[in-house]
Amino acid sequence: MSTPLDQAVALIALRLEADTQHYSGSTHPAWQNMVGPFGGITAATLLNAALQHPQRLGEPVALTVNYCAAVADGAFEITAQPVRTNRSTQHWWLQLTQAGEVVMTATAVTGIRRDTFAVQELSMPAVPSAQDTPAVASLRGRPGWTQRYDWRFLQGDLPQVWEGAEVATSLSRCWIRDEPPRALDFVALAAICDSFFPRIYVRRAMRTPIGTVSFTVYFHADAVHLAAVGSQHVLAQAQGQQFRAGFFDQTAAIWAADGMLLASTHQVVYYKS
Amino acid sequence: MSTPLDQAVALIALRLEADTQHYSGSTHPAWQNMVGPFGGITAATLLNAALQHPQRLGEPVALTVNYCAAVADGAFEITAQPVRTNRSTQHWWLQLTQAGEVVMTATAVTGIRRDTFAVQELSMPAVPSAQDTPAVASLRGRPGWTQRYDWRFLQGDLPQVWEGAEVATSLSRCWIRDEPPRALDFVALAAICDSFFPRIYVRRAMRTPIGTVSFTVYFHADAVHLAAVGSQHVLAQAQGQQFRAGFFDQTAAIWAADGMLLASTHQVVYYKS
Repeated sequence: MSTPLDQAVALIALRLEADTQHYSGSTHPAWQNMVGPFGGITAATLLNAALQHPQRLGEPVALTVNYCAAVADGAFEITAQPVRTNRSTQHWWLQLTQAGEVVMTATAVTGIRRDTFAVQELSMPAVPSAQDTPAVASLRGRPGWTQRYDWRFLQGDLPQVWEGAEVATSLSRCWIRDEPPRALDFVALAAICDSFFPRIYVRRAMRTPIGTVSFTVYFHADAVHLAAVGSQHVLAQAQGQQFRAGFFDQTAAIWAADGMLLASTHQVVYYKS
Repeated sequence: MSTPLDQAVALIALRLEADTQHYSGSTHPAWQNMVGPFGGITAATLLNAALQHPQRLGEPVALTVNYCAAVADGAFEITAQPVRTNRSTQHWWLQLTQAGEVVMTATAVTGIRRDTFAVQELSMPAVPSAQDTPAVASLRGRPGWTQRYDWRFLQGDLPQVWEGAEVATSLSRCWIRDEPPRALDFVALAAICDSFFPRIYVRRAMRTPIGTVSFTVYFHADAVHLAAVGSQHVLAQAQGQQFRAGFFDQTAAIWAADGMLLASTHQVVYYKS
């Protein structure tokens, strides 16, 4: 079944020039943000450009997406180039352009996972299950893309009252899944990694223009793990670390309900005041 | 005074083609690692290529470096291209090649910082001062680049006994400064962000081949803050979050002695077994 996520990340393969695959795509009205599309869906689309490349080796290990300018609603072109292919890892250079201007850049690493020593240090916090956590009552007033998820906040949703008091922490914890439900895969996970509301809104309860500058995902799960999650909720946690001089950062993690850390993810975000 | 750090990151500006500045550089014997140079010094050299570019706007905000292959001792070429320049931010694409092959790729964001709301959420842990913390007694058996730093471990140095028992945490805390002492700046800070020993060595007390795959730094300080640190020690903390299937990640932070979070930094690292 094709969901709005599948539709938004879909790419038309144009020409392969040397190793560089050119694609065309288009923003999707179901993923609308305040200005242009939700950043997570375009990040997922860039990852998809690497995944669809005929020379792709292995599964995603790392993704860094830089938001150079606002994505305009409408058509875009993506190029995906494997700049170095090793025996078990491959390095990607990705670029999204509109009307000949660079709008997003990205690097990705794909790789072949092997059986090794394994241990998880970042445990999932002890929280009630998704089933025992109420969904956000209403998404009214939130941008359209928020309807693409089922949100069940344990802590740190957007403030009920804006212009209120600053709170002591920007920590958020939320069970989340795609809406309509859809089996988790790498592109869906990449999008969820950018689904956190701006930490400065949570901390300060005050609106200011913001924009993600750079966003990184480390994938710890393979396709089999993600398939096992299926359309269950995952636990998404984020916290700001430093807010200063127009930029804040965020460290975040995504766990499966069984406690496995599926991805760790970070970003630095511009804020106006 | 020119220190081994200044010498290692020094670049010779070759030609400017369209917006792309070409440089030549060379690995420095004082920064030798097990194979080739310490990754942090080549990451710092890539950052320096953006900083030396005649069109550079602002100070570093974000840097992501991808280690595509081992850097060979000897000459390299770096290209630095501002792919998008906005009013207050600029996006960079950087590449290091040897003998025509891509060895490292990087993206960077530079930007102009402004006076805004500010708060720090990630506090420096309560630890004894650098002056009250003994330096590592001997660097014997460690790669040559480790002599480029003064190390004062509070927790999580390399194991005294290899092949010992696995420990419960890979957390490290260490006061560190350049050796010989040198005033902190962005390139020195970038190198320090990659100065952590592999988390799997700390956790497992067992050697296995490793290599950083992708490395990200978010800079929270400006040049004035860094100048104020001068050649004092900074507190460097790192912890692994997930070790699985040949890759582990690390989240890390660098604080000035007065408690200011100067940088947050992350990486994903390949390990063999």
